[in-house]
Amino acid sequence: MNSYDYIREGDAIYERSFAIIREEADLSAFSSEQAEIAVRMIHACGLVEAAEHFRFSKDFVSHARGALYDGRPIYCDAEMVAHGITRARLPAGNDVLCTLRDSRTIELARTIGNTRSAAALDLWDEMEGAVVAIGNAPTALFRLLEMLDAGAPRPAAIIGMPVGFVGAAESKEALMESTLGIPYAVVRGRMGGSAMTAACVNALARAGL
Amino acid sequence: MNSYDYIREGDAIYERSFAIIREEADLSAFSSEQAEIAVRMIHACGLVEAAEHFRFSKDFVSHARGALYDGRPIYCDAEMVAHGITRARLPAGNDVLCTLRDSRTIELARTIGNTRSAAALDLWDEMEGAVVAIGNAPTALFRLLEMLDAGAPRPAAIIGMPVGFVGAAESKEALMESTLGIPYAVVRGRMGGSAMTAACVNALARAGL
Repeated sequence: MNSYDYIREGDAIYERSFAIIREEADLSAFSSEQAEIAVRMIHACGLVEAAEHFRFSKDFVSHARGALYDGRPIYCDAEMVAHGITRARLPAGNDVLCTLRDSRTIELARTIGNTRSAAALDLWDEMEGAVVAIGNAPTALFRLLEMLDAGAPRPAAIIGMPVGFVGAAESKEALMESTLGIPYAVVRGRMGGSAMTAACVNALARAGL
Repeated sequence: MNSYDYIREGDAIYERSFAIIREEADLSAFSSEQAEIAVRMIHACGLVEAAEHFRFSKDFVSHARGALYDGRPIYCDAEMVAHGITRARLPAGNDVLCTLRDSRTIELARTIGNTRSAAALDLWDEMEGAVVAIGNAPTALFRLLEMLDAGAPRPAAIIGMPVGFVGAAESKEALMESTLGIPYAVVRGRMGGSAMTAACVNALARAGL
């Protein structure tokens, strides 16, 4: 069998990857805890320059991590986000929930005149103190803000990282500018996605790298 | 309820997104069929500049699409890739398979001295004429090339888009330089990931955008 020269040991690959990222990325804007999350998010997208678009509110890490340790659920807007979260690493066997494919979502979307991704939020019935992880749909993040403005139960933290060309940047700016005061992590602009979002959750679930 | 100004209609969002991408991205290196795939891959990562790293072998679209229409399975290296593929859109109810969490994979990894992602390939038992979609682990792509060099059944096409800082770029260069002659789609360098990989499969599954 032909053999290629590459590292075949998972831990060694992670270690080397994180070392490269810390060497190349400008993480000076972040606290050490935020930087740990940023490193994993960079690892998920393969682009050290992405870090310049990361924004964490000051209380994000403590509130989000606290919610995880308190056993609160993690609500995801997309199956890919949910499947990127390493369940075994969650500190309290937390539920990882995605209601996008719930049979009620199609009808709800018709009723509210929005996407299925946005309508799926109507089925998030334990949102108080939960962690919200939006990694795909700008409409889900906009809808979340609308629901919160209208008095919906407040999550402990919002990971707002929808990706794309229509509404993604705008929805994340709206989250940052919101007067709700809910702790957030954001990738500004068009970038984001399920991998970065799941990486953020996975980083929160660990005490350190 | 506070109301934000955003498009709430899924088809309109897609249409506008693809129009923006076609306006901003340089797709001149691609055939029209390759460009359709590139547009969806850009949509998945939020970065028009990513297109400069996309490489499609000339026969990739016809071979990969042919395999899908022939009902061949799609083998994925990661659950996130598998969960990003829109099953309802696949032309022949194709199986979407990921063996990473198969109970035998841990022991296989020990036996071959490689990662679980690489070991999972030993359980891909219908690889002849299949579509392979690697969107996470460079070790899976290296291992695939090793197995094929040693005479393993040949897939119809390889989507090689692992992401990261250790081995990702190298494994994709190895795929492109391989003398096996198997059609491929690649994101050169560190970028890639499950979203772009799933977008590539989803684009193949449609006749047009």
